Order: sequence, then structure tokens, then C-alpha cells
Amino acid sequence: MNRLSLNQRTLGDRSLPEAVSACTRAGVESIGVWRGPLWAFGVERGAKLVAEAGLRVSSLCRGGFFTSTDRRSTLARNRRAVDDAEALGAECLVLVVGGLPSGSRDLPAARATVSEVLAELVDYAQERSVRLALEPMHPMYCADRGVLSTLGQALDLAECFDPDAVGVVVDTFHVWWDPDLERQLARARGRIASFQVGDWITPLSADSLLARGLMGRGHIDFQLLGRLVSEAGYTGDVEVEIFNADLWRQDVDSILAAVVRSYQEHVVA
Amino acid sequence: MNRLSLNQRTLGDRSLPEAVSACTRAGVESIGVWRGPLWAFGVERGAKLVAEAGLRVSSLCRGGFFTSTDRRSTLARNRRAVDDAEALGAECLVLVVGGLPSGSRDLPAARATVSEVLAELVDYAQERSVRLALEPMHPMYCADRGVLSTLGQALDLAECFDPDAVGVVVDTFHVWWDPDLERQLARARGRIASFQVGDWITPLSADSLLARGLMGRGHIDFQLLGRLVSEAGYTGDVEVEIFNADLWRQDVDSILAAVVRSYQEHVVA
Repeated sequence: MNRLSLNQRTLGDRSLPEAVSACTRAGVESIGVWRGPLWAFGVERGAKLVAEAGLRVSSLCRGGFFTSTDRRSTLARNRRAVDDAEALGAECLVLVVGGLPSGSRDLPAARATVSEVLAELVDYAQERSVRLALEPMHPMYCADRGVLSTLGQALDLAECFDPDAVGVVVDTFHVWWDPDLERQLARARGRIASFQVGDWITPLSADSLLARGLMGRGHIDFQLLGRLVSEAGYTGDVEVEIFNADLWRQDVDSILAAVVRSYQEHVVA
Repeated sequence: MNRLSLNQRTLGDRSLPEAVSACTRAGVESIGVWRGPLWAFGVERGAKLVAEAGLRVSSLCRGGFFTSTDRRSTLARNRRAVDDAEALGAECLVLVVGGLPSGSRDLPAARATVSEVLAELVDYAQERSVRLALEPMHPMYCADRGVLSTLGQALDLAECFDPDAVGVVVDTFHVWWDPDLERQLARARGRIASFQVGDWITPLSADSLLARGLMGRGHIDFQLLGRLVSEAGYTGDVEVEIFNADLWRQDVDSILAAVVRSYQEHVVA
């Protein structure tokens, strides 16, 4: 239970103060913060709020979208995201690397762009002690959200840098299907910056961005994945990140209760 | 143009005679047949109809669903599918291997089951000169349709058998995102039993089974994939397989015209 973190988006579009107080009431000690609600509340105020509540910040979501054609503004945006992660003292800044640039079908080129932009961002992040965390995205998001499609591919990229500078996110929803997962998790020792959990439910929801379920509602074996992540040496927070419109309609305390129950039954058990 | 094959499902639920006559009118020389409409018309009659129209049968869709818990009925079903492929003289029998068994979260076990059932089916197919074709499915179908998620994984399995007995299907929709695709296609020399084309369109349709578009409507680089498949030595038919509700609402000749145009502009060009 003390490793459970609530990713803020599990509460839908609730404000940062609502999320923080919900964590406190539920005894959750860690939070994954999103930049939208952080900025809406104010970065400094938000950092102070989280610190005073005694919460760890398991991740800041998110930077990335490196494949945008305007390289200069991409870097500027991402440096601001690094600043925010530093202000919060977040364990890492999650990077969703972006899909194909508009009108392009050149996937190898988009992937090369990701490497280039990452290389340009690393020094800035390292100077601020912010760990960048590459998130391999489920292949169904390859075209429009993230051209990093497997953990192996994310590790290939991360391994070009110091492990404290660049790690990876292991999100069960994105990686559970991968036939090479066991081997890649073994390889990920020292590189796992964030472990996120959420279930794959069927039928796939009409909005594929909202296709996640609480652990136990779907098809993922959290015992197996949790064990492999532990065997890779990861001892950090376990962040519950569920985008689900039905869940969001509930009140915050009900959501927290459901998250805690689902975590205890399926992840810890 | 003479390598273009029409997968029958590109016409929605039209009957086999409708599909055959549409091919004939459009000058399409090859067809991918589905078992549902084949049985509705009668297997022997259907085989005769296709032969008399002078069409090649690039594939029969489909056998598979090996992960069902009733092994005996799974094998019986698949032997009938082999019989149908033999009756048609189809280039291959496409195998969609099935998802997780109902209530199971044991993905490694489901994958092991696929290997076992395949091994039990191969002799029967080989005696009838029917080539089995393992279809890696997009990972978004892993839970409910196909636990073979990558070309590499399909090749690992196929390579346990003679290349004439077990090959693979390369369907652009299913494999285009794979960072390991170029390497796996090079490895697939002599194993490609079917090459299917269809585009990945965004946003993903509400029904994920109907998420495909005509070539050129989406994000896939057909020039690149076509070249890699050719370099792997494949010289067979190129089967256009589009599941798309908007397309299906058009009349058959309009669909055929759109298929031919899309093929000429994006696959052959």
C-alpha cells in the first residue's frame, strides 16, 4: 500500500487540490501529476501544496511530442516541462514521444527525430536532476501519439544515455501484449523510472484513449508483470493510471476506494 | 494490376457470386475467399464458380481460434477449413490464432496452446497440400482475437515446420508499426504465404474491427512495405482487405473501382 501512487488523470479533469486532498483522505502517499491542472493551479503553488501534503511525486505527465515539425518550439516546450518536474521534485518526467508528423508516412524518419530531440534535451534535464522517462506506447497509438512502440525500442534509445538521465516507463496497458516483454524487462534493470498499472479491457472502448480499466477488470496478469518488474530491481512507486469515462463520473472518494481495492487485490496480492 | 487480389470482406457481406462477378467486371484476377459466404453458397459450387470465372484464390479466410478450450472441436473445425482450402485450390489457409481463453489472463499459456494445436494440424494440411498461414495480428487484438502479435513471433512458430507447410501472412494493417519489421521481413524469405494491404486510419474507428481504410487514406507507407516484401522474395498476389463500414455502403462496382485506383496509386506506383 505504501508504494501506491495515484496518477491524477485517474480522477478525470479534477483540479490538483482535489486530487491531493483525495490522496490524503485515502492514505495514498504518492501522486502522478499532470501539467495541465498543475499550470491551472500555478506551478509554485502546486509544488508547495503537494509538498505540504507530504506526497511523493512519482511522475510528472508529460513532455514529449518530439516529432512536431517545429523543433525550436518543441525544445522550448520540453524545457518548461523539465522545469516543472524540477519544481515538483518529481521522480521523472514522462515523455510521450509523438506520432507521425502531419501528412507524413515516414515512420523511420519520425523515430530518428525522436532520438535527435531527446539528445538535445538530455543535458538540460540532467543539469536540473530531472530524469526523463521514455514511454513506449501501445502500437495502436503509433500513428498519432507515440512512435516508440515497444519496451525494447525505448531501451535501445535510453541506453544511449546515463541511466539517471534517461529511463523508461513500464505501463502495463501499453506493454502487456509484447511477446518479448520478459526479456526486455530483464534488460531494463536500472532503467525503469516509472511503473504504471491499468488494465486492458474488451471490447475496446469507442474512444481508444479511454480504453483502460481498473486492475482486475480486464486481461492483464498483474502478478506476472509486477514480479518481472520487481525482478528487474524496481522498488519505486506503482502508479495507477486509468483513463475511463465511467470511472470519472464517480465522486473522487469512490474512485480512490476503487483504486485502492483494485491495487490490493490484483497488484499486491 | 495482375497481382491484385480482392479480399471478399472488402465488399462487406456480399455473397460469393456477387464478389466473383465484381472481380470479373473489374478485371481483377484473384480473390481472397471467406468461409462464411463460401458455405452459404456451398463449397463445391463455390469452388466451381471461382474456377469457371478463371480467378486465382489468393487465400481462404480463415481457420484458427486455436486457444478455445475445446481442443477436439478446435481441431475438427480447422480440418474442415483445410478441406475448404483444398477444394478451392487456395494459395493458403489464413489462421487467426485466437485470443485469451475466456476468463484467462495467462498469455504465455495461450501462446503455448497455439503452438500445440498448430503442430497437431500440420500433417492433415500437408497431406492435402494446403499451406497454413499464421497471421500476426495487431497488438490491439491480442486479448480477444490473436495472441500472435508480431511477425517475429509468427516466424518463430512457422520455422518449426517446412516452409511449404506453414507460412505467415504479412498484413500491413497489423504489422506496419513494428520497429523490428525490416529485419523480420528479411528473415521471412520463403515464408510469406500471403501479403494483404489495408491502411491504418485515425482517429481509430469506434468499432476497432472496422478501423481500416483504403491505401492512401491513412498512415502506412505502402511503397516501403511493398519493397521489403518484394526483397524478401515474395512474388504472389497482393490482397486488398479493408473492413470499413463507409466503404461497404457503396455499390460493389464503386468499391472495386476505388480498390483498383488505391492499389495503382499507392501500392504499384
